[in-house]
Amino acid sequence: MIVTAALMHGLGIHLGAWMARDGDVTDYVSPELYLDLARTAERGKLHAVFLAEQITNQENGVDRPCGTLDAITVLATMAAATERVGLIGTASTTYNEPYELARRFATLDHLSAGRAGWNSIATQNPHTAEQFGSTRHPDHGDRYGRAEEFLEVVEKLWDSWAADALVGDKVARIFGDPTKVHEINHVGENFSVRGPLPFARCPQGRPVIFQAGSSELGRAQAATHADAVFTAAHLLEDAIAFRDDMRTRAERAGRPADQIKILPGLSIILGDTEENAWARKRSLEEALGLGPNLAKLARRVGVSLEVLQANPDRPFPIDQLVPESEFSGSIGFRRSIVNLAVTERLTTRELSMRYGGGHQEVIGTPEQVADTMQRQFEAGGADGFTLMIDMLPSGLHDVVDLLVPELQRRGLFHEDYQHDTLRGELGLDPVGPRTAVPA
Amino acid sequence: MIVTAALMHGLGIHLGAWMARDGDVTDYVSPELYLDLARTAERGKLHAVFLAEQITNQENGVDRPCGTLDAITVLATMAAATERVGLIGTASTTYNEPYELARRFATLDHLSAGRAGWNSIATQNPHTAEQFGSTRHPDHGDRYGRAEEFLEVVEKLWDSWAADALVGDKVARIFGDPTKVHEINHVGENFSVRGPLPFARCPQGRPVIFQAGSSELGRAQAATHADAVFTAAHLLEDAIAFRDDMRTRAERAGRPADQIKILPGLSIILGDTEENAWARKRSLEEALGLGPNLAKLARRVGVSLEVLQANPDRPFPIDQLVPESEFSGSIGFRRSIVNLAVTERLTTRELSMRYGGGHQEVIGTPEQVADTMQRQFEAGGADGFTLMIDMLPSGLHDVVDLLVPELQRRGLFHEDYQHDTLRGELGLDPVGPRTAVPA
Repeated sequence: MIVTAALMHGLGIHLGAWMARDGDVTDYVSPELYLDLARTAERGKLHAVFLAEQITNQENGVDRPCGTLDAITVLATMAAATERVGLIGTASTTYNEPYELARRFATLDHLSAGRAGWNSIATQNPHTAEQFGSTRHPDHGDRYGRAEEFLEVVEKLWDSWAADALVGDKVARIFGDPTKVHEINHVGENFSVRGPLPFARCPQGRPVIFQAGSSELGRAQAATHADAVFTAAHLLEDAIAFRDDMRTRAERAGRPADQIKILPGLSIILGDTEENAWARKRSLEEALGLGPNLAKLARRVGVSLEVLQANPDRPFPIDQLVPESEFSGSIGFRRSIVNLAVTERLTTRELSMRYGGGHQEVIGTPEQVADTMQRQFEAGGADGFTLMIDMLPSGLHDVVDLLVPELQRRGLFHEDYQHDTLRGELGLDPVGPRTAVPA
Repeated sequence: MIVTAALMHGLGIHLGAWMARDGDVTDYVSPELYLDLARTAERGKLHAVFLAEQITNQENGVDRPCGTLDAITVLATMAAATERVGLIGTASTTYNEPYELARRFATLDHLSAGRAGWNSIATQNPHTAEQFGSTRHPDHGDRYGRAEEFLEVVEKLWDSWAADALVGDKVARIFGDPTKVHEINHVGENFSVRGPLPFARCPQGRPVIFQAGSSELGRAQAATHADAVFTAAHLLEDAIAFRDDMRTRAERAGRPADQIKILPGLSIILGDTEENAWARKRSLEEALGLGPNLAKLARRVGVSLEVLQANPDRPFPIDQLVPESEFSGSIGFRRSIVNLAVTERLTTRELSMRYGGGHQEVIGTPEQVADTMQRQFEAGGADGFTLMIDMLPSGLHDVVDLLVPELQRRGLFHEDYQHDTLRGELGLDPVGPRTAVPA
């Protein structure tokens, strides 16, 4: 079972985390916190830490810590303090250039000796456009068209130096073998990039590609490009159906089904006793209050906040949702949350406590959380999990000290790292030694 | 006296460094080398390490290590292994977006607790355009127009959170004070950026801005925006004239003359004896051979390589240079090198041995190098130096073990770090606490 930990802006995924946690709020921009998180994840043998990236704070103003430090830069700092844990960062294909991003993730892969992963997203936040001089946020189809071409260019660039292109023969004065370093000469609808990358191939050949979209376009793209898929699934049957679908799509794209790892998000709130877990949940909800939670839910599913606030204790108003075709957020999150509300006939207040900020939420002891993980894993609903840590750093320490030993006792989780690269740890075949092909 | 060390692609500024040095060529993409360099610089109390950035290797193919890892990512790794040394990275205003770069340098400043510096350059390499889908490399004036606006936007973004905007009152549920976080609403010829930055103000307020251009447009820009200027000066009188000019321009722009630090590049080749220094120089030149050195010189000054190769032992052919108006490289480097050739009546071969890859070169004992530095410093030709290290890591170890003690003995160089930030160490006034002004 693969286990990664999502470290939302250093403070935790729960919107009340910054208020309920010990420590000053300035922690979220302090190196000590990030170094502690990385070392803790490695102590627990977690496969990777996973950083989201929110490059604007327009959506929420300054009500809460919603913008993040630059993910690759944070991961590079973590790289120096760790040796084995994977380092996955989110970066957008909507507002970056493929040459720059390929170069930066290849740099991180070199500096971490093969531990870099890129969570590729097509940016959903229309406020982001206003930071880049765009007058209009691209629509869903345009974003995915650009994303598809972006991924192609990045992969070509990562392959532009063959594994044996760096010669370094000091006597013969041969630095690189020019027959093994190739321009990519990509000319497409969105990008024209000549290549090659400016330095030698990185240890993994290609950093691991994570993909987060669950829409039709997102799934099609992941089937071709993604090594691992980060998804939202609140119900076991949805999780199984999603994983089956992705494996089938991967095979249709000519890839072995086991070379695409499905890692649903799982929001967990742990306690050494069930009572303590719920006390932790209550402290987070009380710190937050109902209002901000409803505001996030409203955005996640596409419904007006006023409607939700009007009757929080009546059934969640499915009939008030904007049509999916007019919804600009994540389709995957939306469907999963709505399915949960319908299936369990939840009120708005109940749903706001249950949707886990977008992901399935489990509250309880290590045994209870491990039960949920084991059931889903063994039923074919996951290759592992992206644990959404409620509150940091305490939530990560609890994962390492309470949950990991329980998973190890059950034989579900490795006792130690066993490979040289993140790709190896995830059970992905090595890429290469690949010889760059002249374009 | 300010002393920084330029660590060209990890192997050294001399084109023969990768062949003459101990160690495998793969060092240049290995974290161990960069961590050793950062720790060594800090052991020697150097004000900063300085990373160039060459984002393409088109100019030289794969003849030598000419492309670099991403500078900010390398510096973030160095940040975790050090506590005091400054971390200066080069990044282009021609092929980046100001919102992204402001965010990334602010991230580095947070993660290094106030040690980030940005060497702002307008990219001269036309091959770079081909990585970003541009059909034409912008000309000198366009590049500087964009650079000027780029710097304005970055400064506005760094100022978009007041120093006291982050409140973190858990009881009152106040994360940030919205009256102290402002959109910048910049709309200009090149950029439209709404702002603010997504996270709290960084420790230095503004990371230190270095500027490297010495043309008329470059000087005008530096006078307004730069905290420090990296320049090339082969002759003492040129160095004095440049520093006087920049101080006068800064004052005309309403700034105290001592708030712009002039740090000429100085290529040094050290030995414990003069004989050993020259043996080191010879080993570098012999490893390289004359050809690649002439090729670099030809590019640096704008003359055909064939002309230089035809008669290397005749006077350097000034009359064969392309006119300055048609030259797309650094005007500052060119003028300084040509002045050296004319003043000292050098042959092409002699010039190729003397121009130091673009910077004044000194070969000798710590006493001899310190003499040159002291003379120029005391004559008003420098506030300090950007040491171009010939070969890494040995050249940096020699600076720390041989040159620094000599400078300290003379009372020219500090015995230890004395400030909380790079800005403080450089003798620059703190920026802020500044209250962001609504745009």
